[in-house]
Amino acid sequence: MKFRIALAQLNPTVGDLKGNRGKIEAYIDKAKRSAADIIVLPELVLCGSPLEDLSCKPHFIRDNIKALDLIAEGTDGITAVIGFIASNGSGRVRSAAAVINNGSIEDTFYKKDCCNAGEDACCSRTAIFALGDLRFEINIVNGISVSEKEISYDKTRSAADIIFNLCSLPFCVGDRKKIIEYFSKKSQLSGNFNCYINLVGGQDGIVFDGGSFIAAPDGKIAASGPRFEEDIVFFDIDTASFAEVGDKDKQALKKLKLKNKTEERCAVDNVVFKELDRIEEIYNALVLGTRDYLQKNGFEKCVLGLSGGLDSALTAAIATDAIGAGNVTALSMPSQFSSKGTRQDTRKTADNLGIILHEVPIENICSVYHKDIDKVFGEEVSGVSGENLQARVRGNILMAFSNKFGWLVLTTGNKSEAAVGYCTLYGDTAGGFAVICDVLKTTVYELARYINRKKGCELIPESVISRPPSAELSHGQKDTDFLLPYDILDPVLEAYIEERLSFDDINVRYPGIERLKDIINMVDKTEYKRRQAPPGVKITHWALGRERRLPITNKYREPGV
Amino acid sequence: MKFRIALAQLNPTVGDLKGNRGKIEAYIDKAKRSAADIIVLPELVLCGSPLEDLSCKPHFIRDNIKALDLIAEGTDGITAVIGFIASNGSGRVRSAAAVINNGSIEDTFYKKDCCNAGEDACCSRTAIFALGDLRFEINIVNGISVSEKEISYDKTRSAADIIFNLCSLPFCVGDRKKIIEYFSKKSQLSGNFNCYINLVGGQDGIVFDGGSFIAAPDGKIAASGPRFEEDIVFFDIDTASFAEVGDKDKQALKKLKLKNKTEERCAVDNVVFKELDRIEEIYNALVLGTRDYLQKNGFEKCVLGLSGGLDSALTAAIATDAIGAGNVTALSMPSQFSSKGTRQDTRKTADNLGIILHEVPIENICSVYHKDIDKVFGEEVSGVSGENLQARVRGNILMAFSNKFGWLVLTTGNKSEAAVGYCTLYGDTAGGFAVICDVLKTTVYELARYINRKKGCELIPESVISRPPSAELSHGQKDTDFLLPYDILDPVLEAYIEERLSFDDINVRYPGIERLKDIINMVDKTEYKRRQAPPGVKITHWALGRERRLPITNKYREPGV
Repeated sequence: MKFRIALAQLNPTVGDLKGNRGKIEAYIDKAKRSAADIIVLPELVLCGSPLEDLSCKPHFIRDNIKALDLIAEGTDGITAVIGFIASNGSGRVRSAAAVINNGSIEDTFYKKDCCNAGEDACCSRTAIFALGDLRFEINIVNGISVSEKEISYDKTRSAADIIFNLCSLPFCVGDRKKIIEYFSKKSQLSGNFNCYINLVGGQDGIVFDGGSFIAAPDGKIAASGPRFEEDIVFFDIDTASFAEVGDKDKQALKKLKLKNKTEERCAVDNVVFKELDRIEEIYNALVLGTRDYLQKNGFEKCVLGLSGGLDSALTAAIATDAIGAGNVTALSMPSQFSSKGTRQDTRKTADNLGIILHEVPIENICSVYHKDIDKVFGEEVSGVSGENLQARVRGNILMAFSNKFGWLVLTTGNKSEAAVGYCTLYGDTAGGFAVICDVLKTTVYELARYINRKKGCELIPESVISRPPSAELSHGQKDTDFLLPYDILDPVLEAYIEERLSFDDINVRYPGIERLKDIINMVDKTEYKRRQAPPGVKITHWALGRERRLPITNKYREPGV
Repeated sequence: MKFRIALAQLNPTVGDLKGNRGKIEAYIDKAKRSAADIIVLPELVLCGSPLEDLSCKPHFIRDNIKALDLIAEGTDGITAVIGFIASNGSGRVRSAAAVINNGSIEDTFYKKDCCNAGEDACCSRTAIFALGDLRFEINIVNGISVSEKEISYDKTRSAADIIFNLCSLPFCVGDRKKIIEYFSKKSQLSGNFNCYINLVGGQDGIVFDGGSFIAAPDGKIAASGPRFEEDIVFFDIDTASFAEVGDKDKQALKKLKLKNKTEERCAVDNVVFKELDRIEEIYNALVLGTRDYLQKNGFEKCVLGLSGGLDSALTAAIATDAIGAGNVTALSMPSQFSSKGTRQDTRKTADNLGIILHEVPIENICSVYHKDIDKVFGEEVSGVSGENLQARVRGNILMAFSNKFGWLVLTTGNKSEAAVGYCTLYGDTAGGFAVICDVLKTTVYELARYINRKKGCELIPESVISRPPSAELSHGQKDTDFLLPYDILDPVLEAYIEERLSFDDINVRYPGIERLKDIINMVDKTEYKRRQAPPGVKITHWALGRERRLPITNKYREPGV
């Protein structure tokens, strides 16, 4: 006999209990129409993830349980496993999974890894149940275990034939391979099927990338869903391949009623999607994260400063892909320091992308500031003070458009800049969402070339890609006057931020880098800027500002610096 | 025989291993000169607290242990208990306490509450040792237990005569009473002495308030140190009052060598400080938090916008107390909407405080913005867009002074405003430190009156206190046009933020408040502003932005709203 499993990778919105319930119900219907025996949905799919302090509101937990009850009432003719947020007996809030069968919640299992040993009886119970001839286990996956370097496999054979691994795992570049390896190895070692069911969608800075799959006992991926979009994965398992549940086991297990299918079922094709390469992954994450931040927060349109440089061109291209060219407005805000080349490239980029472009020059505004402040200064506003002023005037103009028209301001700074603090607080960091804040400059280049390759044309003009980067806040300024060349800087930043190496270790790995001390010092001393930065798409394990939180007041200096 | 205990409440700086070591050594010397038998220092005193991700750097842990070794080498003739950050055998980072005796570290005990049961053998060992005829226990206090409403007392009598409770407990209004009650009750129930040793000082937004004390077995406070300042508390205990350590106990316990005092010791006076009232506590926390943020980050001077309103006047008064009037510069940045009254009061406040005042009017700057933006808008910059522009121009001017002279910008917004988002991002929220961001407006009034009472004069002019609050961004504007009167608003915010009540619960407690729904909605919808706010002094358990983190993308609406 064939048993049909449906894995639904949904894109819920945090707190939108009604909307999420509607989605879940629609997918349950879809699974029923496709004659599935069981549908499994990701961790926290009903309430959204991560909840942060929303989980501290007891009335929110209650409302989410009410929504679960409503789903259960309407769920018949199929078994459904749904992630939600629960409050256990002792008042502790837990990620949980409900097993719904015949219009009622038959059982609830809790996430294990967040339980203190001995504290919760509810947590120690094995999350296992029987349905027809098969035994199922529910495992709500802890985000940490698969992201750590050393994966320890659970070598004990589970009593279950099929394990449902419910996830809400934030996307990080390179994790996909580890996740697949982990579950296929687990299946091979324990001899059962492992189903991985993950959320989809952007939530503040985090992106969930879906890509649900089924790992067979031979370690192969038997079926999978697409990355970065909602979908439902069907898979037929031949129950004959499993040993019959013994009598003793049967007594111990909660046995749910399996609806007998009267209709003939068409076989499903077990689709396996091609895995994405590194740049495809990143690009998809940036587009989805940006689209969802805008749409879930009720913004139809966005605005950004387009300088003629690469960062803003890339941000504009991502925004265009996310919400459509007609919804993206770019502002060109040239000064006396803007070169003819960048001015032309600003126009060219906007034209290529088909987005709206307005020009608001900043020279007049800056000169009035200078006039009025100079009187008190007793001298001219110049140097950093004058450069930052230009960036802040631009920030103000963008915010004026945001306040006037209700558009979200996208900031355009990259991770290399943010790491060393090569940015102006309330200037180029001013905005609601920082699209590429977790993307190092060398990856910015890769993404630009990827976009052009994908579109088969110079969507981002080649001159934008090849011009030496400059903030254009003074005459002839270049990023490398202040920073290292990005192909030297970025590996250093990765070593310091991602790998948490010390200055000494970096010095050994990359010997002879001039100004290495300065770079490390710049990272350490600009934490205060990152603390006030807007959220943005996280693509690494140590996105600045949120995951990586150094004290601002911090007199520790790396040995050797 | 008398046994002399010294409790040293120090103000370390996070990461400043050399500086903190110097302080610790100086205090050990002081204790030795006063012929103390043991000196006890607070949790994490060597490295500072909280470390945040600094504790993820293995080389930082190593450097802190090196510093500890150096202290140990020089420590003879006294026993010292010192909080530091350790890495236990399994590589886990733990708050720990070293017991130093005769120039070497005799033992290390780890904080218990952060250990997973069964995981660390090092954690399960009872932190007890003998010195002379007395038995001592070390308890590194977990911050949570004393801040929860229900305190569960450890009713089992400890084997120790004296328990040292090492703390790094962030100050929160009202906690002091609970902490004292907790330890005196604990002493009464278990029949031993409890010494509470806490850090002093500001670290980013957190303030440690010292106030170390000794609770005697009768539940009385036998001696105490001052609040909010470094000091050392001496206390003599008569060893005759304790049962001699039995032979069996002696074998089980690590017995440290007690130096015999040859010199005659003068008796110490057991001083008990008067407890501070609520407003005194808050005021001291704000001054210390502001001073330490400035000084520990290397700022000698600060600058702030002085509007003639109460919030900026209070902030200026606190800054003056923190770093001296000569180090505080105020900018008056009037517009056509600034009334004669507030302009006069700005001057009067600056004169009363003795701080420097400069004037930079913003009308010219704003009108050039209007001229240049209106062209693109196709209409006049007005409404919120125009109001926010004024606030942002002021933010830019303050930042220009900061960039030019290296002064830190203090922001002046209060918690009531921040909670409902009645503030302008990159405008009045622009700055490095938000002095009163955790102070509700009704408490702002109390603090102003307290300052005037304390100084015996109108340091903050009465006209500033009594004028109806206004942002003065348009003609005749008053806060109450937009918000509720603060005496109604603040209890609602406390209920919603601190007590985490639902809209329905608040509606029952405070029935008939018009616009209550609007207020709750405003709090929910302005999380994005708080996420980009600078750090500021935390005085409650749910300081906005840091402790209380709601998702920005959040479609949950309170039932009833």
